[in-house]
Amino acid sequence: MNIGIIGLGLIGGSISLGLRKHNFGDKYLGTDSNQENALHAVKLGIVDEIIPLHDLILQSSVIILSIPVDWIEKILPNILNKITMDTIILDTGSTKHDICNRVYSHPKRSRFVATHPIAGIENSGPISAHSDLFYKKNCIFCDSELSAPDAIAMAERIYSTMKMRRIYLTSKEHDFYISYGSHLPHVISFSLANTVLKKFENDKDIFHNMTGSGLHSTTRLAISNPETWLPIFISNRNNLIQAIDAYMNHLEIFRNYLKNKEFHKIDQYIKKANKIKKICIN
Amino acid sequence: MNIGIIGLGLIGGSISLGLRKHNFGDKYLGTDSNQENALHAVKLGIVDEIIPLHDLILQSSVIILSIPVDWIEKILPNILNKITMDTIILDTGSTKHDICNRVYSHPKRSRFVATHPIAGIENSGPISAHSDLFYKKNCIFCDSELSAPDAIAMAERIYSTMKMRRIYLTSKEHDFYISYGSHLPHVISFSLANTVLKKFENDKDIFHNMTGSGLHSTTRLAISNPETWLPIFISNRNNLIQAIDAYMNHLEIFRNYLKNKEFHKIDQYIKKANKIKKICIN
Repeated sequence: MNIGIIGLGLIGGSISLGLRKHNFGDKYLGTDSNQENALHAVKLGIVDEIIPLHDLILQSSVIILSIPVDWIEKILPNILNKITMDTIILDTGSTKHDICNRVYSHPKRSRFVATHPIAGIENSGPISAHSDLFYKKNCIFCDSELSAPDAIAMAERIYSTMKMRRIYLTSKEHDFYISYGSHLPHVISFSLANTVLKKFENDKDIFHNMTGSGLHSTTRLAISNPETWLPIFISNRNNLIQAIDAYMNHLEIFRNYLKNKEFHKIDQYIKKANKIKKICIN
Repeated sequence: MNIGIIGLGLIGGSISLGLRKHNFGDKYLGTDSNQENALHAVKLGIVDEIIPLHDLILQSSVIILSIPVDWIEKILPNILNKITMDTIILDTGSTKHDICNRVYSHPKRSRFVATHPIAGIENSGPISAHSDLFYKKNCIFCDSELSAPDAIAMAERIYSTMKMRRIYLTSKEHDFYISYGSHLPHVISFSLANTVLKKFENDKDIFHNMTGSGLHSTTRLAISNPETWLPIFISNRNNLIQAIDAYMNHLEIFRNYLKNKEFHKIDQYIKKANKIKKICIN
């Protein structure tokens, strides 16, 4: 069974390495618009061969689309046009509603499985890929009733091979929850980075001495690349605006407590926030 | 030489373990208002003996004050009243201007060295303490011209024993820079935690499945305790309000770009933010 990987970056590369580690499938074919990524992917054993997109579509039994969400939206209908009814295609995009909408009425919709393996890191490219990126992380399956049972079963085999937990949601639910669980934290991090870069553009060196692990962890996501993240923000725009508003509202509450010297309320605010431990700390 | 540690939490405990690892000093005396912390500190080898504050002051050549900043402000003048001119006292508080102001005119001001070893983590208490917490981190010395040369020399020996880099600033400069480098990231993290806790109080389980490492790192600081952080926010209130305002301004810029579909500007915003790598990633 040939596996075709479209997009040989962090996600596509890690899926390939994760599957190959468990001897899943036979030949791995790849394509990437970035020639350097493609070369690295072969050197790193992510794929056996780089071939043109058209050939990859025809020669693969399973196609994995791991490219920015705007590109998934653009090329998914064309790929569905070209595949046979035996081929299975799955995507790994961080937003799902627009993608699912785009192919909702496609005659071969059932060959497509919409998934989001949640395990990105701030680094990108095939050199950041590793076989355990997805180990014991969650993969969200969206609108799975629109996919054929054999397609879902194959996608489940793929993710369970990498030891991922599988969660089933509608694409709309997915985009709502993920706007808070991932997209808002990225906006927060980009904004904090820009705040300190602007404030200390003339005294970077002193400021650098004053940064501890607190700033490091809150700006970690700020090195994430625009090629991946701008399309995510565009695709999840409405949810994200609401999430930013909710967050700014909480920030303003804190700010006003501080401004008005309502310190007992800040004490309560911190104690409430401490409960995040139950949700976020594994 | 006896070393007296007032406050046997993460910072006091780690300083003690860090110094003892290098056989610095002889006997370690400790006191803590929390009896459990005090017991743990003896068990963990942080101090040899728990003694009353009054005795610790009289029996120690070097006194290290590692308690919340409001308590440092409260007890520092009394401790200075009681020590001899041979004793050296240093504090480790995360704000410095109020503390330095409080003892500015004290006749024994020169025996005090105001320092801030920047290496806190979100966990607290003596059980989180470890001997390498400060290894290769920065320690800020404030208003050091007001301390006697022998007191500064001893503080430098203490921090260089733990392999800390030493930086010299005024207490005012310290509080300004640290409001962005540490206090703002904490406010951001507490606020994000409260945003998602409030939003998903009725469907925590689904939301939990949708959180990746991005939310984890941006809310990591939100488990920091109110006993330490409320006094810091109060003491650095003016700087922090300005930092929050600057940050909210940047967030609003992003929000408006998204609202107005000015996507090329978001692309620039992300690319600018990516430059944080030079400041924050070691």
